[in-house]
Amino acid sequence: MSTQTTTLSGRSIIAGHEVAGSAGTTRGIDPATNAELEPSYSLIDEAQLAGATAAAEDAAASFGALDPETHAGFLERIAENIEAVGPEIVARAGAETGLPEPRLNGELARTTGQLRLFAKVVRQGDHRGVRIEPALPGRTPLPRPDLRQRRIPLGPVAVFGASNFPLAFSTAGGDTASALAAGCPVVFKAHNAHPGTGEIVGRAVTDAVRECGLHPGVFSLVYGPGASIGQALVKDPAIRAVGFTGSRAAGTSLMAAAAARPEPIPVYAEMSSVNPVFVLEGALRGDVEALARGYVTSLTGSSGQLCTAPGLLFAPAGEAGEAFVVAVERALADAAGQTMLTPGIAGAWQEGVEALGAQQGVDVVARGGQGPTENAPAPVVFESDVPTFRANPVLQEEIFGAASLVVRYASAEELADAARSMEGQLTATLHLAEEDHRTESALLPVLERKAGRILANGWPTGVDVGDAMVHGGPFPATSDSRTTSVGTLAIERFLRPVAYQNIPDALLPAPVQQANPWRLNRRVDGALQLADAPTQEPAPEGDRA
Amino acid sequence: MSTQTTTLSGRSIIAGHEVAGSAGTTRGIDPATNAELEPSYSLIDEAQLAGATAAAEDAAASFGALDPETHAGFLERIAENIEAVGPEIVARAGAETGLPEPRLNGELARTTGQLRLFAKVVRQGDHRGVRIEPALPGRTPLPRPDLRQRRIPLGPVAVFGASNFPLAFSTAGGDTASALAAGCPVVFKAHNAHPGTGEIVGRAVTDAVRECGLHPGVFSLVYGPGASIGQALVKDPAIRAVGFTGSRAAGTSLMAAAAARPEPIPVYAEMSSVNPVFVLEGALRGDVEALARGYVTSLTGSSGQLCTAPGLLFAPAGEAGEAFVVAVERALADAAGQTMLTPGIAGAWQEGVEALGAQQGVDVVARGGQGPTENAPAPVVFESDVPTFRANPVLQEEIFGAASLVVRYASAEELADAARSMEGQLTATLHLAEEDHRTESALLPVLERKAGRILANGWPTGVDVGDAMVHGGPFPATSDSRTTSVGTLAIERFLRPVAYQNIPDALLPAPVQQANPWRLNRRVDGALQLADAPTQEPAPEGDRA
Repeated sequence: MSTQTTTLSGRSIIAGHEVAGSAGTTRGIDPATNAELEPSYSLIDEAQLAGATAAAEDAAASFGALDPETHAGFLERIAENIEAVGPEIVARAGAETGLPEPRLNGELARTTGQLRLFAKVVRQGDHRGVRIEPALPGRTPLPRPDLRQRRIPLGPVAVFGASNFPLAFSTAGGDTASALAAGCPVVFKAHNAHPGTGEIVGRAVTDAVRECGLHPGVFSLVYGPGASIGQALVKDPAIRAVGFTGSRAAGTSLMAAAAARPEPIPVYAEMSSVNPVFVLEGALRGDVEALARGYVTSLTGSSGQLCTAPGLLFAPAGEAGEAFVVAVERALADAAGQTMLTPGIAGAWQEGVEALGAQQGVDVVARGGQGPTENAPAPVVFESDVPTFRANPVLQEEIFGAASLVVRYASAEELADAARSMEGQLTATLHLAEEDHRTESALLPVLERKAGRILANGWPTGVDVGDAMVHGGPFPATSDSRTTSVGTLAIERFLRPVAYQNIPDALLPAPVQQANPWRLNRRVDGALQLADAPTQEPAPEGDRA
Repeated sequence: MSTQTTTLSGRSIIAGHEVAGSAGTTRGIDPATNAELEPSYSLIDEAQLAGATAAAEDAAASFGALDPETHAGFLERIAENIEAVGPEIVARAGAETGLPEPRLNGELARTTGQLRLFAKVVRQGDHRGVRIEPALPGRTPLPRPDLRQRRIPLGPVAVFGASNFPLAFSTAGGDTASALAAGCPVVFKAHNAHPGTGEIVGRAVTDAVRECGLHPGVFSLVYGPGASIGQALVKDPAIRAVGFTGSRAAGTSLMAAAAARPEPIPVYAEMSSVNPVFVLEGALRGDVEALARGYVTSLTGSSGQLCTAPGLLFAPAGEAGEAFVVAVERALADAAGQTMLTPGIAGAWQEGVEALGAQQGVDVVARGGQGPTENAPAPVVFESDVPTFRANPVLQEEIFGAASLVVRYASAEELADAARSMEGQLTATLHLAEEDHRTESALLPVLERKAGRILANGWPTGVDVGDAMVHGGPFPATSDSRTTSVGTLAIERFLRPVAYQNIPDALLPAPVQQANPWRLNRRVDGALQLADAPTQEPAPEGDRA
């Protein structure tokens, strides 16, 4: 009810201090009205940026060595601090992004939920990857030394906020949460499309750092002039890894900068995916109207600005496929355009739609209505066929927003060939019935090579944040198919193994000490040993009988 | 005794077939005599290479889906086939590399041992990384879908043989073994310094592929014209990852080629390390002569051509340090030069030694004797101090071979500063006594950031192949500090996670099927469940009382 009112400072927060930038200013814009929002945000220059990275470097050792309870408590404190200003965050994010309140409330809950999930991961401790091989002095031909392995944080991480998730992929979003959980300080480059949202959340994180008595360099939030400060951040020698969600052009430019450093560093960029949906014959013997509505709902939610929006759908040629397309037309007719994130994104969407529509063999088959606000174009669905799709790479390009292409296929072989011809994807979705299992069995190994997540009879939007999620996939979906940016596995991106050989126990870090003070699961001589496993000792006498 | 005699063909083996190359020839050279060895090896061109990568791509699906028993049996069969021609391999490798027979016998045992270790890993199955979150239809605000994660092989891997380990880091060495264990076909680029050794081992692998009934594209061995075929291999679209051990120049050039591909791929290059040894004050109150002998033995073994040879040692200024240097001088005087791997490597060593000796503030303090063969220069130890070391990057450069630099430090602070100023390393070694624990406690967090393995009171050469080993480290030690090239963790380099959402059980791959037919350990709802854990069900009545 009573929302707190933070006076926005329009400044970066570097290691706990507000810093006014000297490299120009920027402002949030309400995309529903194109009105500029207060305050203006000053942009920092490279010298000011170096202050943030130096503080992060300075914080790395103490932060990386935190005990699990303090560490987990810090992540939970961030979540609490965010919740304390939740309504304010949602209101500001709504003004800056045009995203509807229920979506932002959901995203806020996801953001705090994933911080708490990573707190659980930190307490549980399996990410520390402890492996122990005790000394075998009598082994022949050579004795075995005592060897103990654990994973340590990489060091300071640069995180770039995404335009389309002002909370869950932004200031305290998945990249920040997983990097902090790994024990890496974070220098966060705010997205200039939602600077005020970034500041409110950044203060919540900064407060948590202070309240938990941590080194202030653990977190900085910087506003900078677009690409130039991003390049400077990735090139900074103190930075050891990069988390990014955004466009393919921006992501590949960060990858190139990281690879060209004197000491190259890993970049985890989540970039571009059209998320193909494969509708098999059997699925169209069910409720075709419901299937079409599901497609349109998944496509138009958040104005199509989700990384996993279904930008491509394969439907059979012939009558059943035709009935599906007609159903899509009906379903889309009821859908009105929603405000897009920025005028620039709406403009790029328009250009993408015009370019796709201008391709030979591509027709518009369905269109929704224009939305009532600025930047709320009518969603659109195109249609083509597999030969056209395979011959023209423009048909594979992501159009960020509510536009999708239905590609009609003539046979299971044509469908598999189309799948094989595709670039890497975040997701691949199958709609199928029992009778389609043979087609699907041939398709599944192809899709495994192409995508990070494979779904059946659902829609790819709505990414569950948990232990088994993969939000990743081969390039260009991401820069590194070995990882995920959503879910607990994301913490592994920011860790590396170190082995300790014959180090006296008193000098060993806690995770590999013989007494196992943190009660970690460990792999001993190649076999997992659970810390909380029932002991193998016989129960005391009194417990028998 | 009776060694089989394989007639060497001088040809590449592409997917089971001998292929004569059309891009010139090369020959092995006996470095002890500089004599050319028979036969000459024909080098393949890029079109022939494409045959190998296409076959690997073709083999990827069936090989990646092998059941654990067949898969492990294949790795064991390679080991058996290698053992069957063991004496022949050792004889040829000795002629091609100048390495002594006991060293090569040890390396052969390591090679077959690590193949069998990976067979165990494949049977055990933890590398598949299974995570399961069963559906929660009643979860609010949204139901949870059924989510199952496993890791799948990346696809065909290019492996480059190392000059200094003609067996354990070559044709069927650690990179090949771990890639095959992950389920990735391998295209192996033979090292032109030991082509005959490569062919004998390559036949053993090829035979195993055939004997196990696998797709012949699972393994190819190619001879090619140095750098150009290597670049072509890394750029080939069928190749999904690269394993390499060798020089910093060659490694960084492969990294650049991989990053410049339309679809970048990971490169695991193990390159350059001087493996600093930190001798603390207390260690010199013990047996200084033994310490010096240990250093010289570790430095001169295999003519100093080990990735982990101690190329740099920090000793205290003052009397105790002086006594150590004198002891090194005595120990090295007894050491004769041993044949180096190739005339080119011996020449590069000579240049490196001359360059280091020419630096201001660097003096020779100890020298061994020239060896009796060609290419067997006298090992040498230089001396300098921390200020000189910190001011001149030449003093940090690896000299591949038996040359090392003793750097004298004036204080614990100076030592820590020197450690902080260093590049990434494979190893860092401490010699210390109880009284040094305070100095060491300050040093350890610095060394963790710099090295993949930290040892106490031993020597870095002699890398144990096991579960807890890390043979890796920050750049330039390797291209990717998140991994190891030795030990079971190496398999993780060639895997990526895939999530399955609501896929019918009948369509799921075995590792994530509900019935767990491969009896894998799994992470269920975030907690590890061991396949062989005692069941939690109450014991039957008869067992109580």
